[in-house]
Amino acid sequence: MDQKTKPLHSLGRLEHLAIQLGGIQNSLLPSICVPTMLIFAADHGIASEGVSPFPQAVTAAMLANFAAGGAAINVLCRTLGWNLQLIDAGVIEERPFDGVLNRRLGCGTRNFLFDEAMSQDQLQKALDCGGELVESLLSQGCNTIGLGEMGIGNSSSAALLAHCLADVSLEQATSRGSGCNDQQLAQKIGILSDAIAKHGRIAEPLAALRTFGGFELAMITGVCLAAADKKIAVVIDGLIASSAALVAFRLRPSTRSSMIFAHESAAQGHAAILKAMHGEPLLHLSMRLGEGSGAALVLPLLQSACALLKDMATFASAEIPKQESQQT
Amino acid sequence: MDQKTKPLHSLGRLEHLAIQLGGIQNSLLPSICVPTMLIFAADHGIASEGVSPFPQAVTAAMLANFAAGGAAINVLCRTLGWNLQLIDAGVIEERPFDGVLNRRLGCGTRNFLFDEAMSQDQLQKALDCGGELVESLLSQGCNTIGLGEMGIGNSSSAALLAHCLADVSLEQATSRGSGCNDQQLAQKIGILSDAIAKHGRIAEPLAALRTFGGFELAMITGVCLAAADKKIAVVIDGLIASSAALVAFRLRPSTRSSMIFAHESAAQGHAAILKAMHGEPLLHLSMRLGEGSGAALVLPLLQSACALLKDMATFASAEIPKQESQQT
Repeated sequence: MDQKTKPLHSLGRLEHLAIQLGGIQNSLLPSICVPTMLIFAADHGIASEGVSPFPQAVTAAMLANFAAGGAAINVLCRTLGWNLQLIDAGVIEERPFDGVLNRRLGCGTRNFLFDEAMSQDQLQKALDCGGELVESLLSQGCNTIGLGEMGIGNSSSAALLAHCLADVSLEQATSRGSGCNDQQLAQKIGILSDAIAKHGRIAEPLAALRTFGGFELAMITGVCLAAADKKIAVVIDGLIASSAALVAFRLRPSTRSSMIFAHESAAQGHAAILKAMHGEPLLHLSMRLGEGSGAALVLPLLQSACALLKDMATFASAEIPKQESQQT
Repeated sequence: MDQKTKPLHSLGRLEHLAIQLGGIQNSLLPSICVPTMLIFAADHGIASEGVSPFPQAVTAAMLANFAAGGAAINVLCRTLGWNLQLIDAGVIEERPFDGVLNRRLGCGTRNFLFDEAMSQDQLQKALDCGGELVESLLSQGCNTIGLGEMGIGNSSSAALLAHCLADVSLEQATSRGSGCNDQQLAQKIGILSDAIAKHGRIAEPLAALRTFGGFELAMITGVCLAAADKKIAVVIDGLIASSAALVAFRLRPSTRSSMIFAHESAAQGHAAILKAMHGEPLLHLSMRLGEGSGAALVLPLLQSACALLKDMATFASAEIPKQESQQT
């Protein structure tokens, strides 16, 4: 990179990105092949407590919207060149969605105010599902996976995972989700405090995931674990996806090297999760939509970083004098 | 935008971008057509004072590198889908470059330590050239222009324009350019102080441009002025291009509405220029290369913003319940 026709380090974060991708792929000429966005949808028992301003039926309705091609992530995938794979990880409404992979682990998780969100068996199946998806994509030549989600209530899971696994208070970890007002936010923090009072601030990553997580989150954790093994880059979206990545990171810190953090969400709590993983997000666009939208936007940066490494001339090949202070 | 299937404002800056583009194009369905990157190259008399660690011959050598397709901007334009138009605005070495538009106004500007950089006639020709390029692109169906530059010494022009036209001290306005060390930077600030001592801190935009500017900068100013008239979006690259845009803004503040600021350069002084125009850059990638590289990277964001506005389903069309607090 230092031989390319540009002042040293003048391509900034693009240079780091090219070098990270080269490291992941163990190649001096990394490339982005069959980039595939995985969107996991699931419902959450905690939604019945009123933690979201949207009704729970929106999870299935949005999954149908994804399947019909009308959501933001559809538009972004079409515009930017991602393959899109939708996964029903367990929404409440059991109905067939065209083009959606059925990996249902139940009709939503249990309400963690009273129970652990999922059983050990459900957790293991979710993690395995993530691994199987990675295997399947690998066999299709994919080396870059985007990770997004949809699930009314899942910002509550993200807040609790952040509080348990990153160094952040519950107040600082709790976001407005899809748009809580001040009163709804205070109520949400109260409910999440009750959940911590019941189960404790669980430090063991998989126990925290089982207790407070969701099916879609556990599958994302599974993808992160498997992708690191298989040398596949994972592009992590915003708050929710990052909280699932944090579980993988706490479980196995080496997974960090294959993670690319797409953007800093406007949602409270995301910065603390990123800090816990020393993650520097590429974009700062005040987005807070989820469904992989931020992850989708960085694909051109990844492609550009690879192309610069591959195709730029060097000072020698272009016969350009180098910086005088470097010649001495 | 508020009817689309997403929480209100959750697409953040992409929503603002879509709305800005709609405003520029006076359309509810803005689109990006024939996006064209203009790269202006010129030499600077001040370079003979040693303000850059690179020899002056690098300007022409890099123009040849652009023409041969080996520079960063070539790679980025190919990767992201920009048309690339190179313009020789007046490099020292007079030789034909394949595929480069000859709009030479001299063999570089005069050294502004002793003279005004250019004559009134040269300034007017440069501004006119910018206007003619806009007319020509408009006739080709282009509605989005990227603006970049190359010219050893031109960060000295940018520093002086920032000092004259933005509220910033000369020390705070002066960058390391292509890579000054501490000693070279101190020497550069001393030289630029001498230039201010000779000519004064000129507040009139065109006089400042004529005295301290460069041919490439003046052409960029000309493009900004004409593009605003013709309702064409201009994507401004980093420090140098922004300093030329600042001249247009000071001359005619209404030009601001068609300007999109691509990124915040790592170069000192850029933040002050952006602040003077209330410009919020889209990317923060610690880049400081120039040659339109930052501007190139935002094309997918512009395309995405337009596509979201055009193609996303609405709550009504997708039959999705809206936020409960909005329904009451």
